[in-house]
Amino acid sequence: MKSEKTNNLEHILIKCITACETCATLCLQEDHVKMMVKCIQLDRDCADICALTSRFVARNSPHAQHVMRECIEICQACHDECAKHEHDHCQKCAEACQECVDACKDWLASKTTTM
Amino acid sequence: MKSEKTNNLEHILIKCITACETCATLCLQEDHVKMMVKCIQLDRDCADICALTSRFVARNSPHAQHVMRECIEICQACHDECAKHEHDHCQKCAEACQECVDACKDWLASKTTTM
Amino acid sequence: MKSEKTNNLEHILIKCITACETCATLCLQEDHVKMMVKCIQLDRDCADICALTSRFVARNSPHAQHVMRECIEICQACHDECAKHEHDHCQKCAEACQECVDACKDWLASKTTTM
Amino acid sequence: MKSEKTNNLEHILIKCITACETCATLCLQEDHVKMMVKCIQLDRDCADICALTSRFVARNSPHAQHVMRECIEICQACHDECAKHEHDHCQKCAEACQECVDACKDWLASKTTTM
Repeated sequence: MKSEKTNNLEHILIKCITACETCATLCLQEDHVKMMVKCIQLDRDCADICALTSRFVARNSPHAQHVMRECIEICQACHDECAKHEHDHCQKCAEACQECVDACKDWLASKTTTM
Repeated sequence: MKSEKTNNLEHILIKCITACETCATLCLQEDHVKMMVKCIQLDRDCADICALTSRFVARNSPHAQHVMRECIEICQACHDECAKHEHDHCQKCAEACQECVDACKDWLASKTTTM
Repeated sequence: MKSEKTNNLEHILIKCITACETCATLCLQEDHVKMMVKCIQLDRDCADICALTSRFVARNSPHAQHVMRECIEICQACHDECAKHEHDHCQKCAEACQECVDACKDWLASKTTTM
Repeated sequence: MKSEKTNNLEHILIKCITACETCATLCLQEDHVKMMVKCIQLDRDCADICALTSRFVARNSPHAQHVMRECIEICQACHDECAKHEHDHCQKCAEACQECVDACKDWLASKTTTM
């Protein structure tokens, strides 16, 4: 049976994937694409690791915790980069990444406590 | 700018991915796995096509509509198989697949109308 | 039992994924990123559909043929865009996409004949 | 410019994905599916982490090394489980996983040396 926390985590991971995909697409349409390169690169990595993590959590994989540690790291890096840019899509992506970092940390903490 | 309909669609696609992953995992733990084989196989395909579709929609890809047609087909097949089984995870997965089929059809209809 | 043709197809799909990922990464490092935007966008879609197709083929999914038709379409579009650019990574990607289109068409033709 | 080692690694990761997908599909068709459950579960995780790793390597991501460490761990677990079963697809999958573990370790070692 899946807990509320898990359902919520999956929802947050998914929001982060779509925020990253949207951010990458809109960065490519900005006038100064050159300044957005690092942002686009992190968006790609972040969307991919969130996608993997959400599926490992959904399938209750014994490897979910390790993958989530890496997810936290990449989300944090993506947040830090996006937060530097004023574009609306970057700000929204930074927010989604931060929410993701927090939810992943919460989930990991709950696993450590209950085991 | 992303419409409410698109945000909602992405949310429904994601719910379907996690329902499929959960269903496949729990099918593997059932006493009569043998009877669940087709269900597990469809769960894998369905989760993958929904994942692809959600990312094509999020990135506003010109290929989103084609991919979505295939998504509808696989979700429908997954629904039909899951609906045959009484397990709670199968029933929930069938429901998520049906919701996905409906949302994808709505989205496609809205695209046809506005173009 | 998997045929030689299938093993070969999977290998070609994979080469195309890595060519697309590499091309997108190097496009982002070009001086005139602005001119490479369409190329980067197609690289993302192409890598994703090839990844899905290779897994549907590997798992012998009944949906492999439909997905492959979309794969051919996206690979063709990616080839046509990449072929316009003189960068080495674009030329290599165009070549990998063309090889992919040909291999997918061969595979589809072999399925139609043997059924 | 991509080295021979990197091209080879991507090829090996891909072979591992297809070996895992094939193994999971054929495990589901075995008479004693019940005995193959852990194998199927590991096949799913292993295919997914190899897919992520191959794309991070192809796009030259700064996060490739961390992801690869997790890839080694999951490939090793998948190898150990597959190696217990006499089915041809399990033996082939165990072999592909081992090859993957070795190639990833080589690649990581080469990164540490050159930096």
